[in-house]
Amino acid sequence: METISADNLRAVGIDLFEGCGAPREEAHTVADSLVEASLVGLDSHGVIRYVQYVEDCLAGLVKAGAPIEIVSETASQAVVDCGFNFGQVGGAHMVEIARDKAVATGMGFAVSRHCYHVGRIGAYVQQIAERGMIGLAVASGSQEGHFVVPWGGREGRLATSPLAFGAPGPERPLVVDMSTSMISEGKIRALLHAGERLPEGRILDAEGQPSTDPQAFYGPPKGVILPFGGEMGYKGFGLGMLVQILGTVMAAESITADYTCVNGFSLIVIDPEPLLGSDAFGESMATLVDHVSSSAPLPGFEGVVLPGQLEYETRERRLRDGIPVPEQTQKQIVAAGASVGVSVSL
Amino acid sequence: METISADNLRAVGIDLFEGCGAPREEAHTVADSLVEASLVGLDSHGVIRYVQYVEDCLAGLVKAGAPIEIVSETASQAVVDCGFNFGQVGGAHMVEIARDKAVATGMGFAVSRHCYHVGRIGAYVQQIAERGMIGLAVASGSQEGHFVVPWGGREGRLATSPLAFGAPGPERPLVVDMSTSMISEGKIRALLHAGERLPEGRILDAEGQPSTDPQAFYGPPKGVILPFGGEMGYKGFGLGMLVQILGTVMAAESITADYTCVNGFSLIVIDPEPLLGSDAFGESMATLVDHVSSSAPLPGFEGVVLPGQLEYETRERRLRDGIPVPEQTQKQIVAAGASVGVSVSL
Repeated sequence: METISADNLRAVGIDLFEGCGAPREEAHTVADSLVEASLVGLDSHGVIRYVQYVEDCLAGLVKAGAPIEIVSETASQAVVDCGFNFGQVGGAHMVEIARDKAVATGMGFAVSRHCYHVGRIGAYVQQIAERGMIGLAVASGSQEGHFVVPWGGREGRLATSPLAFGAPGPERPLVVDMSTSMISEGKIRALLHAGERLPEGRILDAEGQPSTDPQAFYGPPKGVILPFGGEMGYKGFGLGMLVQILGTVMAAESITADYTCVNGFSLIVIDPEPLLGSDAFGESMATLVDHVSSSAPLPGFEGVVLPGQLEYETRERRLRDGIPVPEQTQKQIVAAGASVGVSVSL
Repeated sequence: METISADNLRAVGIDLFEGCGAPREEAHTVADSLVEASLVGLDSHGVIRYVQYVEDCLAGLVKAGAPIEIVSETASQAVVDCGFNFGQVGGAHMVEIARDKAVATGMGFAVSRHCYHVGRIGAYVQQIAERGMIGLAVASGSQEGHFVVPWGGREGRLATSPLAFGAPGPERPLVVDMSTSMISEGKIRALLHAGERLPEGRILDAEGQPSTDPQAFYGPPKGVILPFGGEMGYKGFGLGMLVQILGTVMAAESITADYTCVNGFSLIVIDPEPLLGSDAFGESMATLVDHVSSSAPLPGFEGVVLPGQLEYETRERRLRDGIPVPEQTQKQIVAAGASVGVSVSL
């Protein structure tokens, strides 16, 4: 597949989102987020989204340039109205708000209202970790994306509900970024288009029976996705509820009303330094990473794989070799540019 | 199996721990915790622990009555030295400390040092939820219990690392309480004693090969436990790292030195009321629970199983019918009583 440099894709993204009416700095934030997701290999949240974002701007679902406002706060907490600006713009503000509160009190919490798609949530906790703090982030989803069944149910009631955790490491941040379901909708679609079967244990058909046929998910009638954990899926369901409570209920936002948000995003920031001193925390983290990494490898592995390590390696490779972008996606990006009066050269 | 009433078992526990030198109120806290764990069906953390706790008091590993002291704090955070008192005594203090800080700033965080076994961590977040707040708790473990492999490794480097989450619900709290491994050591031991095989995908033998033989775990040479998630065990490993970082690194406690703790316990408390008003939060929680519960049941289920629901039902049943206690355990409890000059009648 043809690759395109991150710099080129970023420049295109900035032009596109400025074309949608975003201030240049905000266009930069959004393009950066999508290019970074592509760089670390999370293509479903990468530059493939350029087209959807432009379409949603034109449809009025995204309000480029809308102000980001704190609507309620305590010493450690804030509810942040993201005004349907790009989710990454709201998310960047929320990182600063939660971080400032953590600097002031030790702990910071921010939760969104009226938030569009926030992108790869690992990016936010990574930014926090790069600044010496611990971050925990969740992104709940609105009802139209409730593909995931609760434990004991056969109808979708939760989104794939990712959660992310980041902490400063001795060489680079540790970043956990995981959905709380067995598969994402994007991966099912990719298998459908490729004419392939799903692995077992990912979805149920409309009757609640296990299936490996991607079409059994899309229907009609529509199927559902199972929560993470297989026969212990009650754990994945529990984590999904955690995501929904922190991301949506903590903003008192409805998960059942029409279009209150795309993502309910929230973020906990913990500052270890005033509590422990930065040296004590850093030394203890280094001990943990050494301890874990010292395990002999499992057959088939070269060694222990730390959280975020594969993404880091993919990023190094794609910075060097470029980001693979399917020809069809390139054409769509050019067309999206034309729709907002931007000439795109890829 | 013979059952014994919760009241009887609680009275016995109080006598036992007073016999170990605990002040009566602290003996009550510990006995309550273990009886509650038995009531909700978590027998591995229940009254079966009476014997071990008494033995560890006699061995000097538990220092009954030791003071619980804040050694470092910020407006929202505290490091709490539990002085090797019973973990439940330290844990009860930590709930109050984290809750007070959440009342003051919106967020509270407490992390232990020198903490003995804290018992069922779901109990702490449940107490927080009963008081209208959200709780997130973790318990890391010291090196001797590092049975769980990191992703890509075949040597144990993490404990089974439970995490718990609790939130106020419309009828009762929602309580998630899950290990981040595929099985607990206690369950492997139970299957060994029963002469049964493990389900597939729980353990590896000393060579890193999958096994269903409980003896392959105990060796010699010793085997290991897999992280939660099967082929997606990198997620369970990531959650295990979260537990280890919040429970141990955030106290700057070593996970590799000898006997610094049994559990590294930490607790995040979020107070929704000053941010949202209690009505807004409660209404949003009720909407979520209604939405999730409205799913049609999966074949084989009567309906959606909310987090903590099975434990609640078990508790109701055992309050009525008594707690099953094997005869061998009863004899051991009587002998433990004799070792601290307490006459036990079960």
